[in-house]
Amino acid sequence: MTALDWSHVFATRSERMRASEIRELLKLLDQPDIISFAGGIPDPALFPVEAIRDAQHAILSDPKQAAQALQYSISEGYLPLRRWIADLMGKNGVPCTPDNILITCGSQQGLDFLAKMLLSPGDTALVEAPTYLGALQAFNCYEPRYDRLIPDGGNVTPAAYAAAAEKAGGRVKFAYVVPDFANPTGITLSVENREKLLDLATELAIPVIEDSAYQALRFEGEAVPSILSLDVARNGGDIEKTRTVFCGTFSKTLVPALRIGWIVAATPLIQKLVLTKQAGDLHSSTLNQMVMARLAETTYDANVARAIALYRTRRDALMAALAASMPKGVEWTKPEGGLFTWVTLPDGIDGAELLARAIAEERVAFVPGKAFFATDAMANTIRLNFSSPTVEDIGEGIARLGRLIARMTP
Amino acid sequence: MTALDWSHVFATRSERMRASEIRELLKLLDQPDIISFAGGIPDPALFPVEAIRDAQHAILSDPKQAAQALQYSISEGYLPLRRWIADLMGKNGVPCTPDNILITCGSQQGLDFLAKMLLSPGDTALVEAPTYLGALQAFNCYEPRYDRLIPDGGNVTPAAYAAAAEKAGGRVKFAYVVPDFANPTGITLSVENREKLLDLATELAIPVIEDSAYQALRFEGEAVPSILSLDVARNGGDIEKTRTVFCGTFSKTLVPALRIGWIVAATPLIQKLVLTKQAGDLHSSTLNQMVMARLAETTYDANVARAIALYRTRRDALMAALAASMPKGVEWTKPEGGLFTWVTLPDGIDGAELLARAIAEERVAFVPGKAFFATDAMANTIRLNFSSPTVEDIGEGIARLGRLIARMTP
Repeated sequence: MTALDWSHVFATRSERMRASEIRELLKLLDQPDIISFAGGIPDPALFPVEAIRDAQHAILSDPKQAAQALQYSISEGYLPLRRWIADLMGKNGVPCTPDNILITCGSQQGLDFLAKMLLSPGDTALVEAPTYLGALQAFNCYEPRYDRLIPDGGNVTPAAYAAAAEKAGGRVKFAYVVPDFANPTGITLSVENREKLLDLATELAIPVIEDSAYQALRFEGEAVPSILSLDVARNGGDIEKTRTVFCGTFSKTLVPALRIGWIVAATPLIQKLVLTKQAGDLHSSTLNQMVMARLAETTYDANVARAIALYRTRRDALMAALAASMPKGVEWTKPEGGLFTWVTLPDGIDGAELLARAIAEERVAFVPGKAFFATDAMANTIRLNFSSPTVEDIGEGIARLGRLIARMTP
Repeated sequence: MTALDWSHVFATRSERMRASEIRELLKLLDQPDIISFAGGIPDPALFPVEAIRDAQHAILSDPKQAAQALQYSISEGYLPLRRWIADLMGKNGVPCTPDNILITCGSQQGLDFLAKMLLSPGDTALVEAPTYLGALQAFNCYEPRYDRLIPDGGNVTPAAYAAAAEKAGGRVKFAYVVPDFANPTGITLSVENREKLLDLATELAIPVIEDSAYQALRFEGEAVPSILSLDVARNGGDIEKTRTVFCGTFSKTLVPALRIGWIVAATPLIQKLVLTKQAGDLHSSTLNQMVMARLAETTYDANVARAIALYRTRRDALMAALAASMPKGVEWTKPEGGLFTWVTLPDGIDGAELLARAIAEERVAFVPGKAFFATDAMANTIRLNFSSPTVEDIGEGIARLGRLIARMTP
């Protein structure tokens, strides 16, 4: 028999699917003696295990609910859960109905579906530098060109973005942004810059994808209205006239592994997305959606409060440790929420080289910044996560890292 | 504000995403006085509700397992579940390891991922006429051309398939087949024709996608070896040399709404698919995978036996009712398993027209055959499902349908 040459049958898009060095690296970090700032995952101590167990038990003890929970279902998602999300959005300045909502398998699936619907090969996606690595992985499959989104305007005009896209053989199709306590920078976009972003999107006639994964986890300061809520306000309260696509998730507020996220947008987009969902995996787990609907009602607020309290303490510990232990020339962001801070190293120190030495010499891990750039990576950057390590480990780990950076600084 | 024209930003592929008339129709069929042969879903009486409840409870009562079940996880899937699947495949002539397996959200997601990896726009997918509607919906998003797969050879040579594909601006990328008790026809591909299909795929240097959704539900007769097992046998027992991609699912044997399916193939393909999964939705629900691993160990065999017993009775009832009630000129398949039979009506009776009248005049529903064809639909066909209606309803419903067809026959 002639063996099949798989590379001969792959689509061109599959060449963009490459293993992330970072994710490979993270697999190696299970050694217990390593202090890791590399993750981006919630602390499992926050998972509402009993509430989930009770919800499962209640649903599966009622024959009618059990039959519904385990059977095929509609692609849009479980209606009571979409109703709860519509209420939550309404409280945050986005009046909408369940018809404006699609349930997805985490917001990662939302990003994949949006790129699938919007990007033809060679089209341009506007993304920040740096931006969320998982978004780049989702978008890459649809062979886009990237251009750098500067939310506060900068000196790139809409016409210049459009001309560059056309020169590359496509059109600008969307702007993607993580506006609150961004992954990886921890930075929050001001209301003024959100308005400027909407102006830019309006001039370019494109949607804004608002990845709101961390919005609920604000430790201090005043909440900034979501881009979608500003868009709704511009349009007389009518979501049907908006251009913003809001991606939400329960992964950081309740639990990741039920894989429940959502998209909120005008119905013409949602209706197309429902077809994408139907073609993609029919529907999200009905049982998990029913459990999440119960958790949302009973434990969402308390769980968010607990997460905020825990992560604020760790953020404070990290800020104190950085101030105490980092040599001159190292800069970092001061996130008002979320899971991450972003560190800029002295010129000439490469984040990837630092990681190799940090693991070998100091048993400390983090993610080098390079992976978060679609183009023109800044090598002298790293991302530190503060949701997973304990306060004690934060102090010790940053002291070790500071010593190493001092040794490497010329 | 200028409202966004969404059609201006959709990718060309999104134009292929259309609402299926059938699925729209099925939504209307909740009226309790309709006898429906339209569904394609398992009987919820078969769901192992208690076993699922017990599994959830056990996992979530153990702190270590609970933390794992609810946390982010690897894209490949839960290792003990992949081990169980590897054992099952091994028992069925496919020696393999967990590295040959990716867990998907139902086999629908497997079909989407395979099309995503394999199809560039204009490439050719070989599909049977008729074939599974959900596969066409998944493939459509990647803008293929379709050519008719004739598994038993027919008179189309491999060179003719290749030439037609090249003329259309692409290449033949795969052959897709539901070999056992196919949806929609109920027909099983003979071992001889499976071998011919492998010969064809070898000459064309393409993979075969084997959608094995119904294989376990055989009521009678001898099991036909899977195409993958024949491919393994051709290659000295080495799955790494095979070209067949096996898509399996627990949706028909245990429960659909945990959304657990799997793909088995050579590792070069699985490794690419893992990246697709990572970019697509990170991973399937860990909790659901852990529950399914327990169900697989404890109730899989018993559940399959119960499903076979129940569906066999209904298949028998349907065959008897068709023989008793259908006028001359109506033909149907005699499935040895699965959920469906395929009815060919007298020339000139359109399945869609028949449905409209069947609902209005006889309160009976089914799916018109047209939707299952990628090209050149045969309008005088319908699909009847026998997994959902009771034996009593089958007799009554087919009697009504027979009367109506008799009235419509010239």
